Amino acid sequence: MTRDLYIDGLECSNFDREVLEELRDGNISCVTPTLAFWENAAETMDALGRWRDLARDNADLITIARTAGDIESAHATGRTAILLGTQNSSPIDDRIRYVELFHDMGLRVMQLTYNNQNAVGGSCYEPTDSGLTRFGREVVREMNRVGMVVDLSHVGERTGIDAIEASGRPVAVTHANPRSLYDHPRNKGDELLRALVANGGVIGLATYRNISGPWVSSRARWCDMVRKTVDIVGIDHVGIGTDLSRKSGEAELEWMRRGRWTRTPQYGAGSATNTGKAPKVEWMSSTRDFPALARSLSADAGFTDEETAKIMGGNWLRFYRDVL
Amino acid sequence: MTRDLYIDGLECSNFDREVLEELRDGNISCVTPTLAFWENAAETMDALGRWRDLARDNADLITIARTAGDIESAHATGRTAILLGTQNSSPIDDRIRYVELFHDMGLRVMQLTYNNQNAVGGSCYEPTDSGLTRFGREVVREMNRVGMVVDLSHVGERTGIDAIEASGRPVAVTHANPRSLYDHPRNKGDELLRALVANGGVIGLATYRNISGPWVSSRARWCDMVRKTVDIVGIDHVGIGTDLSRKSGEAELEWMRRGRWTRTPQYGAGSATNTGKAPKVEWMSSTRDFPALARSLSADAGFTDEETAKIMGGNWLRFYRDVL
Repeated sequence: MTRDLYIDGLECSNFDREVLEELRDGNISCVTPTLAFWENAAETMDALGRWRDLARDNADLITIARTAGDIESAHATGRTAILLGTQNSSPIDDRIRYVELFHDMGLRVMQLTYNNQNAVGGSCYEPTDSGLTRFGREVVREMNRVGMVVDLSHVGERTGIDAIEASGRPVAVTHANPRSLYDHPRNKGDELLRALVANGGVIGLATYRNISGPWVSSRARWCDMVRKTVDIVGIDHVGIGTDLSRKSGEAELEWMRRGRWTRTPQYGAGSATNTGKAPKVEWMSSTRDFPALARSLSADAGFTDEETAKIMGGNWLRFYRDVL
Repeated sequence: MTRDLYIDGLECSNFDREVLEELRDGNISCVTPTLAFWENAAETMDALGRWRDLARDNADLITIARTAGDIESAHATGRTAILLGTQNSSPIDDRIRYVELFHDMGLRVMQLTYNNQNAVGGSCYEPTDSGLTRFGREVVREMNRVGMVVDLSHVGERTGIDAIEASGRPVAVTHANPRSLYDHPRNKGDELLRALVANGGVIGLATYRNISGPWVSSRARWCDMVRKTVDIVGIDHVGIGTDLSRKSGEAELEWMRRGRWTRTPQYGAGSATNTGKAPKVEWMSSTRDFPALARSLSADAGFTDEETAKIMGGNWLRFYRDVL
């Protein structure tokens, strides 16, 4: 019997050996951690250095993946491939040539913008979305050229659609949900999702409470959201991107929300009446819960084994083969 | 008939297509350019980006080498391998983990110090040489581990000897001459040279006027210096590192000598009575002069063909095979 291949498209966790063991326990063959929210080139290189150390110190559990083949090798050896990513293009310090250099250093996923407008494009929280900028077009083209995943999760809707049009390869929404199912600025409208599908992309559905609303009230309910998303984008374009933040606390939340750009409170995906870290989703409190989720997709949402395999990791793997 | 393999261990030239054509005309199969004198990580990454562009735009002439095999491939296809190097450890911004990251980005040669003391060790121009520091030992060990050439050319004598002792692999003096033949702070004493040889290293002899004195007065005279150096270190440990600076002018000289560290005049290898750019050595005004030098090593200094081949590139190639 071959082991199932599960992939988590995006996490914000602070990984240590315990969290890496959870990946193993959950049968996760690949995960993308977040190396940067607002960090610049130097700080992201520090984060890359820490991941090198973590991979060397825990070589029995993980390996840093540079290709889709590395993910398959990790799966075959019962380990988890780490597909290094950032949630902002801040690491390239507005230099087109840094895209290739960060690719050399192993970075494989880059979200074009985090919560704010930057030189590349507009964000989901900006009152006005600039669309993909002139520099942004260059960055998308360069990411295509070197083989780096363009992630549109926190990106503004207009900028996201522009990026899909500009991209010569499939792009991803690693962690968001359809806006038609839960109306939140972080979630994606049908126009963007249609363009994403036409371009061969994948949306990783999130279990993050603030952008999932009632759908996270139970595992079965969330699987119903998966079913409804499949109705919108088709079975070949849905994956999982939990947005889990294991061992990440108030300090990290402050950094994500305020970075160095503001002196005033910011609520990110929360609100003035919901300011703290979103409470854990009890049925997805760590990646240990992936196997139960797979069972629920079949038992509660009625997916076939083949469909479940696509949602749990098969679609991401095909996507990584296309892009990396 | 196989073409001879020539290697220039170190240049400061500003490379453009014309200078790259000179490399071809001179039959140079590998050269190390200087990407940094005082530049930090970001600036060195900019320089790496420029070299990527240069290599893409002149793929008929050059290729960036990551291994000794790449040098042999370049030689086989009549091109010049660019072995990327810096004349300071400033690119790593005092971070041990950046050594591996810069290696990932293609850097293969790093001089531990330029003209000043830094966190790694003492320089040839400092009144007191700290020796290899605690951090310096870590850097040498890390360069060993990833496969990066430790260059001692501008390094202080004590620090250089310490580095040889600390190094688990052969190290290089890419561009200097024996101090016993011409007394200059940049040149190397016999104790260091003996240690270099015992460790399997190579010294690249320089044609730079300020550190060569009377030996550059003619090609034949310089070949006599090669002969005398071979008497000191043996035929297997001598190469060439011209220190050529084609298309490099006063602005570059100012940067080399003063960087950002001083407001007062500095003379580098010159002196208060010899402040400007050293006059060209007429018989080594560009790499086009390499074939004539090879002939002179045989005709004037009496080296056999096999010995000449070692001096002109064979020793460097063996060294790169050992280290990279």
